[in-house]
Amino acid sequence: MKVDGRHFRSIWVEGDGWTVAAIDQRRLPHEFVIAKLTTCEEAAEAIRSMLVRGAPLIGATAAYGMALAMRDEASNAALERAYGKLIAARPTAINLKWACDEMRKVLAPLPPSARAAAAYARADDIAEEDVAINQAIGSHGLKLIEAIAPRKKPGEAINILTHCNAGWLATVDWGTATAPIYLAHDQGLKIHVWVDETRPRNQGASLTAWELSHHGVAHTVIADNTGGHLMQHGMVDLVITGTDRVTANGDVCNKIGTYLKALAAHDNGVPFYVALPSPTIDFSIDDGRKIPIEQRSADEVATMTGRTRDGRIETVRIVPDGSNVANYAFDVTPARLVSGLITERGVLAAEGSALARAFA
Amino acid sequence: MKVDGRHFRSIWVEGDGWTVAAIDQRRLPHEFVIAKLTTCEEAAEAIRSMLVRGAPLIGATAAYGMALAMRDEASNAALERAYGKLIAARPTAINLKWACDEMRKVLAPLPPSARAAAAYARADDIAEEDVAINQAIGSHGLKLIEAIAPRKKPGEAINILTHCNAGWLATVDWGTATAPIYLAHDQGLKIHVWVDETRPRNQGASLTAWELSHHGVAHTVIADNTGGHLMQHGMVDLVITGTDRVTANGDVCNKIGTYLKALAAHDNGVPFYVALPSPTIDFSIDDGRKIPIEQRSADEVATMTGRTRDGRIETVRIVPDGSNVANYAFDVTPARLVSGLITERGVLAAEGSALARAFA
Repeated sequence: MKVDGRHFRSIWVEGDGWTVAAIDQRRLPHEFVIAKLTTCEEAAEAIRSMLVRGAPLIGATAAYGMALAMRDEASNAALERAYGKLIAARPTAINLKWACDEMRKVLAPLPPSARAAAAYARADDIAEEDVAINQAIGSHGLKLIEAIAPRKKPGEAINILTHCNAGWLATVDWGTATAPIYLAHDQGLKIHVWVDETRPRNQGASLTAWELSHHGVAHTVIADNTGGHLMQHGMVDLVITGTDRVTANGDVCNKIGTYLKALAAHDNGVPFYVALPSPTIDFSIDDGRKIPIEQRSADEVATMTGRTRDGRIETVRIVPDGSNVANYAFDVTPARLVSGLITERGVLAAEGSALARAFA
Repeated sequence: MKVDGRHFRSIWVEGDGWTVAAIDQRRLPHEFVIAKLTTCEEAAEAIRSMLVRGAPLIGATAAYGMALAMRDEASNAALERAYGKLIAARPTAINLKWACDEMRKVLAPLPPSARAAAAYARADDIAEEDVAINQAIGSHGLKLIEAIAPRKKPGEAINILTHCNAGWLATVDWGTATAPIYLAHDQGLKIHVWVDETRPRNQGASLTAWELSHHGVAHTVIADNTGGHLMQHGMVDLVITGTDRVTANGDVCNKIGTYLKALAAHDNGVPFYVALPSPTIDFSIDDGRKIPIEQRSADEVATMTGRTRDGRIETVRIVPDGSNVANYAFDVTPARLVSGLITERGVLAAEGSALARAFA
């Protein structure tokens, strides 16, 4: 999507045909910095340090990391080393393992001399496949937005609330939750997005707001506490979030706080949709309560990083020194609160039977 | 309650018999500074700038502000000037108007020579009445906590979640939501409090955590997004919040985000109680949806203030420059989601008939 009027993806191969470039997401929203990845180790470090984040983008970065490794040394030993290094960068991301497995499957049978070119080709395909999936999600989700439009008075915006960042920055392009929003905006529908700040890592305030702003989509950042009040007052037409994992029965694991918004949507008759590429469905688990919930560093809650009035980037502590802090990263929204799942194969009921029919 | 092992109230008269001292709450949790108020103008400014906050404490501060005014000049004109100045400091606080009216009623009939002493006496009474009300709230709420204790295994804590700061810092002492917690703790019950950070102003992280810490109550600060997940996993036994206004039918207006926690409590069978002194009940409104919701400065959402690693207090911006921000300060929790109201006259059902019986 657009940054300062120019089209960008979150990751790409430079004009030299091999250097991998990615937007450094740790520096957003205050600085737009392009990182150059020239070795497998740099790709792994980009994933580990969250220079790149978002399951689909992590997958694409790992694929390019394998290509960078093969360019350097294409032996069987080097292939295994690269696989091991990348897969360890963030062990819980589903797409990371999928992309590394996929690359190894393609590369292992080839003679070493053919591996570098094949690796770049497959990594490019993985990136393109992600873009195509998100466009498909976008066109299915667009129909939900179009269905709301006739209820609006002339000039009135369709209000969509989203939580966290399931935007183009989390994917190669378009995003998942944002794909329907960008498509609707590009087609001239009047859209306004309520952006949950998304404590503790603030992905809404720092990433979703930034990308909507650069693409010209009207939006308002709100504290995570606010969505219920807005829904009570008819100020939200539709909620769309992303997800990190959907279980076989349709339960949705997503960024902490998603469940609270789903409850408020249900209490106020607001449709609550979840956008996802099908690899996010985990058919091996039949109940969201069985998903282990990652606990992350207390510092993410206890401190906040931003820009001072005179332009310096500073981290400040906001919790007293003597206080404990807990940081649960995800919660599970039961399928009964989900109006539907927006996938690349259409909008499905959040039910085991619908998921099995579409993807099993 | 205790600060560094010593008993403090949030406001008091110094040993000289007239200077008013108050804890500067803008500096917490990183600095403990006592402000000295020596004129009515300083008292008004303390309210305006949120050096003091919390409806009961604002009322007590205004009462002492009238006393400071009378000490300086006790004419009828001076009385009216002080009344006007104090009441304008935060026009929406219920207790501010109540305290100013009360002081004027006592002082106006007196000869000017008697006003200063009478003003200090009535202001002291207002402060003492607040303490007594909170102790009564505490003893009624304590029974709810005691009822949970037998279900706990030996050594297991009773987990109470609270939102915002309805602690002793919001009152003269004890607090409203925290009064049952402090009483239970002081009686030796094992208590653990989940403290909602409470964006955007962070009163949970900066005030509730600070006061619990100094009084020795075990607690954990969490992002506001977290409570639903904790309740799904049986990690919350009881929710107690404060309130800014309860309508005649039992709807509860409180800090933004309270409604989301009430929904989660309801969805998970967790009791959800609201603690309040009876002047918080607004019998003139019969439906929470009729309460106008204050919108505050965007800066409260867009920036965050804290302490840098090297000890400086800095304010950092966390939202991109081009993004809109909205800041709704309160929401309304419908009475149907409230298990009960903890008042100085006992725990009441959140229903018009129960409120009318107890207080009409």
